Amino acid sequence: MPYINIKVTDENVTKEQKQQLIAGATRLVVEVLNKNPATTHVVIDEVHIDNWGVKGKQYSELINSQN
Amino acid sequence: MPYINIKVTDENVTKEQKQQLIAGATRLVVEVLNKNPATTHVVIDEVHIDNWGVKGKQYSELINSQN
Amino acid sequence: MPYINIKVTDENVTKEQKQQLIAGATRLVVEVLNKNPATTHVVIDEVHIDNWGVKGKQYSELINSQN
Amino acid sequence: MPYINIKVTDENVTKEQKQQLIAGATRLVVEVLNKNPATTHVVIDEVHIDNWGVKGKQYSELINSQN
Amino acid sequence: MPYINIKVTDENVTKEQKQQLIAGATRLVVEVLNKNPATTHVVIDEVHIDNWGVKGKQYSELINSQN
Amino acid sequence: MPYINIKVTDENVTKEQKQQLIAGATRLVVEVLNKNPATTHVVIDEVHIDNWGVKGKQYSELINSQN
Repeated sequence: MPYINIKVTDENVTKEQKQQLIAGATRLVVEVLNKNPATTHVVIDEVHIDNWGVKGKQYSELINSQN
Repeated sequence: MPYINIKVTDENVTKEQKQQLIAGATRLVVEVLNKNPATTHVVIDEVHIDNWGVKGKQYSELINSQN
Repeated sequence: MPYINIKVTDENVTKEQKQQLIAGATRLVVEVLNKNPATTHVVIDEVHIDNWGVKGKQYSELINSQN
Repeated sequence: MPYINIKVTDENVTKEQKQQLIAGATRLVVEVLNKNPATTHVVIDEVHIDNWGVKGKQYSELINSQN
Repeated sequence: MPYINIKVTDENVTKEQKQQLIAGATRLVVEVLNKNPATTHVVIDEVHIDNWGVKGKQYSELINSQN
Repeated sequence: MPYINIKVTDENVTKEQKQQLIAGATRLVVEVLNKNPATTHVVIDEVHIDNWGVKGKQYSELINSQN
């Protein structure tokens, strides 16, 4: 505890970026809530762009319409 | 806000069906709660049929036993 | 299966509105994916407006700044 | 209802182990809370070892540093 | 890791029952996947019976119709 | 998108701390993934200390045993 879940679209997030997200999220709860890094879990979910919707539309279609 | 998560088994949900789920879920919170489509996020998770259980059994096994 | 989770801010969602959300979400997966209503679970989470953030700010503060 | 979600790292969990997790989790809520197995859903999420962090580090890196 | 989430309806689950759920879920991943209890987190969510739906109906209404 | 969920135990997290968590989590995905703050949602869940388990025990009991 804590448990932090970061959901993003599956758009080539690099291993290095994932490490930055994990380190940054852990640092955040350590600094703000004085939590223990050793018991702080961070899970990153990468969601296919067909599977994420906003404005009632698939993110993949929103991207296409902008190109 | 709102955030809607739809978890289904990974049984060849088509891109078109995903668009219908996203549009339908967004329309639902717009009509019932007067929410803004632009800030309504919908995420669809497709779960392998070995990874979903009901009645204490894997969904894959329940399907096999019906065939 | 399916399992549908609807997260909204805790802004006096009435019992009747919750019933409409549950009925609408169930009807959606029945119509789009031909799922069985009897095994379709819908869970509504109501999140305190201090606990939901967008644009880097608490929703409660965004509301205050609009009033 | 209930709905049980088990998140583990993606380290070759076998189909048989998944069946044991599903059966065990179902038996747990039947025995402790007298729930109905037929309406108890269990979902197993397998998370890539780059996507799970503890101690501010990716699980993949923690494993490497131990080898 | 692992992280186990148990969602049940808010029907007076006692502190002792919660302890049994936590112990049982932990024992399950230790026995099946040889996980470390010290890094196994279990979170129990209790959902209001108006907020859980199955068969397109609120659980509270299903209970009423049975009484 | 993204959607970030921070689960912590219900131990008097102040409104100000929640604002810091929301601002920090948003800043993290802006800096690392160049995401748009306006579409970045952060939800904080506060879990009762009886409902969170680690080492097979309720967090409330672990705290008691340390006092």
